Formats: sequence, C-alpha cells, structure tokens
Amino acid sequence: MEDTIAAVATAYGEGGIGIIRISGEKALSVLNAFFRPMRKHMKQKEQKNVFEPDSVGMTNGEPIVNRRLTYGHIIDYNTNQVLDEVLAVYMKAPYTYTTEDVVEINCHGSIVSLRKVLELVLKSGARMADPGEFTKRAFLNGRLDLTQAEAVIDLIKAKSDKSFDVALGQLDGTLSKNIEQIRNLLMDELVNITVNIDYPDEDIEEITYDTLLNNLLQIGDMIQKLIDSADTGRIIKEGFKVAIVGKPNVGKSSLMNALLRENRAIVTDVPGTTRDTIVEDITIKSIPVKLIDTAGIHHTEDQVEKIGIEKSKESFNEADLVLLILDGSQPLSIEDQEIIEVIGARRTIVLINKMDLGQVVDEKKLLEEMPKASFIHTSVKNGQGIDEIEDKMEELVFNGEVKQSGSTFITNVRHANLLVSAKSALEDAIHMVRLGEALEFIEIDVKRSFELLGEIIGETVSESVIDEVFSRFCLGK
Amino acid sequence: MEDTIAAVATAYGEGGIGIIRISGEKALSVLNAFFRPMRKHMKQKEQKNVFEPDSVGMTNGEPIVNRRLTYGHIIDYNTNQVLDEVLAVYMKAPYTYTTEDVVEINCHGSIVSLRKVLELVLKSGARMADPGEFTKRAFLNGRLDLTQAEAVIDLIKAKSDKSFDVALGQLDGTLSKNIEQIRNLLMDELVNITVNIDYPDEDIEEITYDTLLNNLLQIGDMIQKLIDSADTGRIIKEGFKVAIVGKPNVGKSSLMNALLRENRAIVTDVPGTTRDTIVEDITIKSIPVKLIDTAGIHHTEDQVEKIGIEKSKESFNEADLVLLILDGSQPLSIEDQEIIEVIGARRTIVLINKMDLGQVVDEKKLLEEMPKASFIHTSVKNGQGIDEIEDKMEELVFNGEVKQSGSTFITNVRHANLLVSAKSALEDAIHMVRLGEALEFIEIDVKRSFELLGEIIGETVSESVIDEVFSRFCLGK
Repeated sequence: MEDTIAAVATAYGEGGIGIIRISGEKALSVLNAFFRPMRKHMKQKEQKNVFEPDSVGMTNGEPIVNRRLTYGHIIDYNTNQVLDEVLAVYMKAPYTYTTEDVVEINCHGSIVSLRKVLELVLKSGARMADPGEFTKRAFLNGRLDLTQAEAVIDLIKAKSDKSFDVALGQLDGTLSKNIEQIRNLLMDELVNITVNIDYPDEDIEEITYDTLLNNLLQIGDMIQKLIDSADTGRIIKEGFKVAIVGKPNVGKSSLMNALLRENRAIVTDVPGTTRDTIVEDITIKSIPVKLIDTAGIHHTEDQVEKIGIEKSKESFNEADLVLLILDGSQPLSIEDQEIIEVIGARRTIVLINKMDLGQVVDEKKLLEEMPKASFIHTSVKNGQGIDEIEDKMEELVFNGEVKQSGSTFITNVRHANLLVSAKSALEDAIHMVRLGEALEFIEIDVKRSFELLGEIIGETVSESVIDEVFSRFCLGK
Repeated sequence: MEDTIAAVATAYGEGGIGIIRISGEKALSVLNAFFRPMRKHMKQKEQKNVFEPDSVGMTNGEPIVNRRLTYGHIIDYNTNQVLDEVLAVYMKAPYTYTTEDVVEINCHGSIVSLRKVLELVLKSGARMADPGEFTKRAFLNGRLDLTQAEAVIDLIKAKSDKSFDVALGQLDGTLSKNIEQIRNLLMDELVNITVNIDYPDEDIEEITYDTLLNNLLQIGDMIQKLIDSADTGRIIKEGFKVAIVGKPNVGKSSLMNALLRENRAIVTDVPGTTRDTIVEDITIKSIPVKLIDTAGIHHTEDQVEKIGIEKSKESFNEADLVLLILDGSQPLSIEDQEIIEVIGARRTIVLINKMDLGQVVDEKKLLEEMPKASFIHTSVKNGQGIDEIEDKMEELVFNGEVKQSGSTFITNVRHANLLVSAKSALEDAIHMVRLGEALEFIEIDVKRSFELLGEIIGETVSESVIDEVFSRFCLGK
C-alpha cells in the first residue's frame, strides 16, 4: 500500500492528449525528479511561445500550487534530453481519486511519448500499477465501497446510455444505500434476538415469533425485489437480444432497416474489431438492443433447410425476445406454422405485417396458438407500427413496471449471487421461526444473511474476492 | 475563426480518463451552462466522498480559478440528469494551446460518457472541431509556425523514439530556425540586388557578380544539405525497410529471431489491427526498422518458384537495404548465385554465416561480384556478429555521418518538395549570374527561392495548402 503507482490513464492509441497518472506518497517527488516548469525559461523566449507566465516552480524548492495545470518540459535526467512538453498537475491528498497524493501528466497522446515518460516515472520511484489499482486504493482507503468501485469499471465499459446511467447511480451509492437499508433492518432483528438470548430475564421488550416472522418476511421481499431486478439489469448491461424471424420476403430486412434507421447505433465499433454481420447493435429508448437477423441464415443455407432451422433455433435460445413477422395479407402458410412451432413458448411479439394490403390472416386462430404473445399490426414498408414495437420492447425489458430514473438494478453477477444466498439464509431463518426453533439457531442464519449482504458492499469480504473484482479493471483506473 | 470548437482529445476507446477540449471565446460560458462544482453539495455529504473542498464556484457568478482542476458534475439542463462526474479546467487566453480561452473536461473514459458530454457541449454553443483545428488555430493565431504545427501530428503518430525526437525538435522550432537562417541570407542578397537596381547611381557598395555567385552557391549548399537529410528523415519517420534473403536453412529465421530478441518492438500493434506476418517492426538504435522476411514467401510458394522469386523481387524493390545470408561453410550454390543476380546493385549487407563451422565460401569472388556490398562474418546461431549488423545499419541510415542529437532532418514530403523547388529557383539565378545577365532577371529567381522557403514555415502559403496540411490531423488536436 505504501508503494507509489503509475500507469497510462487514457485509452491506448493515437490522440491529442494522453495522461499518465501517479498515486502515492512519492507522487510529487517523482514529478519533481524530471518536470521543469517553463516560467524562467519562457522569459527569454518570444511571447508567442509562452503558455504559462506565472506557474510556480517546483524545481527551485517552491511548492507547486495544488490542482494547478502547469506547463513544462519532461527532462530525462540521465541524458538531459527533453522527452515531451506537457501539462502537469499535482492533487494533494486526501481530496483525490485514491485519497492519496495524485499527479497527472498530460503528454502528447503518442504511444512513444507515453511509453518514454512512463519509463522515466518508473525509474523515478513509482512502480507500474496493476489493473484497477487506483480504484482499489480508493476502496481500501474508504472513499468508495465495493459496489461503487465496481461501478467505475461498468462506467468505462458501458455500451449504452442506460447502462452508463445505472453505473453512475451505483457509483453515487444508490445500490449501497439500498443494501445498507436492508442490513440495518436485519441488524435491528439481530439486536432484538441477541438481547432476548443474552438477557432473557431483564426488563426488555420480549420478542414475539409473530413479529419476527413478519419482519423477516418483509426483509425477504426487499431482497427478492433486488434479485428480480437482475434480469433487467443484465439486459441493461449486456443488451436485449431480439431475434427477428419470418419466412422469406415477409419484411424482415425492412423491419431491421426501419429499426436501424430510427435508432442510430450509439456505440460505434472500435476500429478494426470484427463484427458478426447478422447482429446489429442499436439503442431503443436508451436500452442496448442486439438485433439478430435470422434472414441471413435462412438465405445462405437454403439448400439445407434443416440446418437453417437448427441455427434459427440457436438464435431463439439466445434471444430474450422473438419478433415474428407474418404476412397479414395472406393466410398462414405451412412455413409460418413450422416457425411458430419452433418458437414454442418463447417470449414473442407477433407482427401482423402488410396491413396496407388488408388483413386476411386468421388472428383468432393465432391467438389460440400463441396465447402469451403480444400482437402488433404493422406496415413496416410504410413505417406503421414501428413505434409500437419499440414501446412494447421497453415494456418487456422493465417487466411492465414504470421505469424510474434512479431506480436500482442489479447488473453484477457477484451481487446477484450474494443476494440469492442472503435470501436463502433468510429463508432458513424464516423456516425455523415458523417451526418455533430456539432463537440461538435463528440468530445464526439471520447473521449469515447480514454478512452475505455485507460482502456486496465490501464490509465483510475476503482479499481474494477483492482481487477478483479488481482484476476485471483496465490499466490506469 | 470566432466559433468555439470542441472535440474529444484523447484516443478512442475505453480508458480511465477521456478528455473533451473546448476552445474559443465561449469556452467558459459553455462550461458554465452545465458544470456544477461540488463544493456546496459536498458539505452535506460524508467526508469520504469529498474530492475538492475549496473549489471556486462558477454557477454562482464567481470567476473560476485559472488552470485549476475542479471536481464537479455535468448536469444535462434539459433533463436535470447527472451525465458524469468530472474534473474540469479553464485556461485563460492567451497562454493556451490555441491562444484562445480553452476548457478541458476530464470525463470517465467511456465511449458513452464522452459522447453524451460532447453532445451537451455542442448544444451549449460550441461546434464540432475539424481534424487538426485546435492546432490550426495555434498556427493562425501565430503561436506556431507551419512546420511546428506539422510537428504536432508527427509527434502523435511517431512510431519510434527517433521519429518522436525529430518531431519534438521540429515543434521546438529547429527546422524553422534553419529555414529562417537561409531566408535571411537570401534576403541580404535580395536587398543588395534591389538597391543596386533601384539606386545604381547612389553612393552604395556596388554588387559584384563574383561575390553574388559565391554567396548564392553557399546558400544553395545549405539548402542541398537539408534536401540530403530527407532520405534519412523518411527512414526515421517511416522506418528502414530491410529485406532478409537467402536460400532455405541458411539462418534467415535465426537472424530474424536474434534481431527481434534484442530489439523489442516498441510500438505494440493496436489490438485488433491485422498485420502482415512477414513484416516485423523493431527498433534498432532508436531507428524504426521493418524486417521483411522473404522466407515465408519462398516456403509457401515452393511449387511455383518463379512466382516466389517475383515476390522476393518486390520485397527487394521496397527495401532500403538487403540483408543477404550465405552459408560460409559451403561454396556458393547455384541458388546463391541466382539470388545475387536478383539483388543486383541494391544496397546490401552480405552476412557470411555459420562461421563457427569454418569458412569455405570464396570471399574474394564475392567481393568481385558485389563490389559495393558490406561484408560481415556471423554465426547467427551463437549470436556472433549481430551487434556489427546493427552498427552497420545505423551507419547506413545516417549515411555514415555522425548522428547528432538535435540535428535537423527533413521528414515531411511537403518540405522536401519545396526545398527542391527553392534549390532549383536558386540554380536558375546562379546560372544567370554566371551568364552575367541583368540583376532584374536574377532578382526574380532569388525572390522565388525566398518565397518557396517561406511556404515551408507558412509565411507565404495559400489557404488550400493550409487546409491540406491540417486535413492529415486527427480529431481533437
């Protein structure tokens, strides 16, 4: 913990600016080793080359001004060579990202410059930071709890507005507050139980099993509500997978294009990454959506229809939702029937398309065959019904509940697993309360539930879990 | 020019920090529109969440402290939503990158966050910057000359220490000074010529054609020296292309591996970019080197030997240097002879390899066949001779001249072309001096030479040239 650490904090590649971040006791002395503010030098130069007329020098023993972005040169003290011209800033502990002294050096965003300056930093008393180590220090120093630290990496990796918002809320402590609230309620019960065990004869309010049962059930509901949000949370984080199916020429491509046109992909691919051509990433009402077009599969594998249907099935199995397009101006064909069979009980929106040509298909019969599906009348060609599809998708993602800004979603598998375990421990306790078992036994399970919830926010968590959490981070954060 | 411009200034991708840069008159008012420093809010929060206890608020009308990195929230004023938590800094004109008011916002380095905040910036009075527009403003506002501005993009794109150093020198004005010096000498001659034309009867020092010839020849030499450096300059910038050739099993792969092992590739590929497997980028003595292994070609195209040799020829034609490996422990084979023929007069280092097995090959005959080649005795297997190869390569790159830190190299094709034109105009003048033509004619060519040199530093340059120069830039710089 006493090491001073350093890493490049900006994304890898060519850019105008690249930042090297240093954190720890020696951050300022590391900077002092090679940074030369340009005030004195500047006086001899022409005005047009002056960036910074009044920076406070550090090399002459004066303290640098806290948080002031200062222009200067990085000088390699071995060769006396200027490595880069930079803006450097010193941020004094404890009001920093890590709560330690932090230095940031804004270099030219060249791979060479960043490597050279970083090498000099590492020669001057800092060591290379592990991935996530800056945030890990923020956690270990108590500035962030574990869910907040985990939110940082979700923020950086967010692929849609909604997932960014949820992560930002989590960083702000919304999830922690929720968990703390449940833990406080559990603690009340624990205190009550313990007091009744330890001082059964004192003049204290005696515990009644009825009240205890009631309270534990209520707490269980609160945990369950969080568990239930994990499904939506996963979709927010990873995307809502929607498979578009239907026989050829029914309008699959038109639908795909209509949805793409109205919902520009917000996250452009990182240049050079390959992409699966049959999946399109779009954003519908702030929700990341992965549109899986099964058209391609059918088309290219036409001769081996069986294989095509197998592949479609795989797409269905991955999908959170199936969008089935039927030609409403025709009766159901055998092909349609086969597709409906393959879909089975999956969550489905049925689009009765080509409504501009008049409805012929027997909707009553369809309703009988797919009683749980939602039906929308569309004319994709004319843009009719697209809004309705999007509304319906949003409704399904949020399970029909009103979506509130700031509502808590569990987006992290670690949290979801701990919540399930905590709920299960609580159910054990509830079971024993119902059986009228001794408080000593009940106490054990309530305590276990309390501690499992504590693991979520990092109050009671092992070092290996912490290492696991931060290993998912990128360098420089 | 009066627009306020904005762009993401860091490399594209996921990182700890991403910077949005704003420049122009409205930079501060744009920031004020959505930035909320966190001092007041903080007082109600727990200490552990405080970054910045004493930042000066801007939203309440107080001026922000120049160059102070200030913690706060970006608030979307349409939705009142917190978009990100950031560190923002305001840098007051004129001591900034563009010489205008500049604001930088250090956001979470997430693609979503940067997009969202940038959208808000663009809604608040700034427009999207063109590629290179920040640096273009630094040029148009007189802080940088054109060679300095061009150095910025070379810095960012630098692929080796040497190319970075040359660009940094150019940014510091080494090339400009060189050009200015030559232009001053030309100006002296011009003044002299003009005075003699305009006031032939006045009591001024009369021009002698001998002195004029002498001076112009000296200036021509100075220009030629810069032109001569362009070859080395190109290599420094783009890499020294070295083709390794030789018959199978003579040690090509071992040589490749030995060079790779000792000269770790400094520039790692950007993840996801494809790479030509037969070219390896390494750095030898700070020089970027592209090793072209013709082994792969020979190997995979074995059956069609002719095509293989064609391909090898192409590699030779691209190469700045051919490294030919011969088996020194054997007499020259027909294969060797064929390769030597293909190489022809190309710049070549001949490695007489397998010296540990004793020398059998007839070196005298080789010398006769390749009189201009350099010969090195090696035992690549034992690492013998590798250092010598590297020394020889360095020598060839710098044309045998002593390489000096800070020496000027022409790395830019635009500069090289203008130098050649300026030299040619000067030679026209020299030709006329020799013919004893009238000063009026000589003046025209000397002036043209002077102006062509001025185009290099941007003194006399058309708008289309400026646009061309800055179109090569990346966004955000």
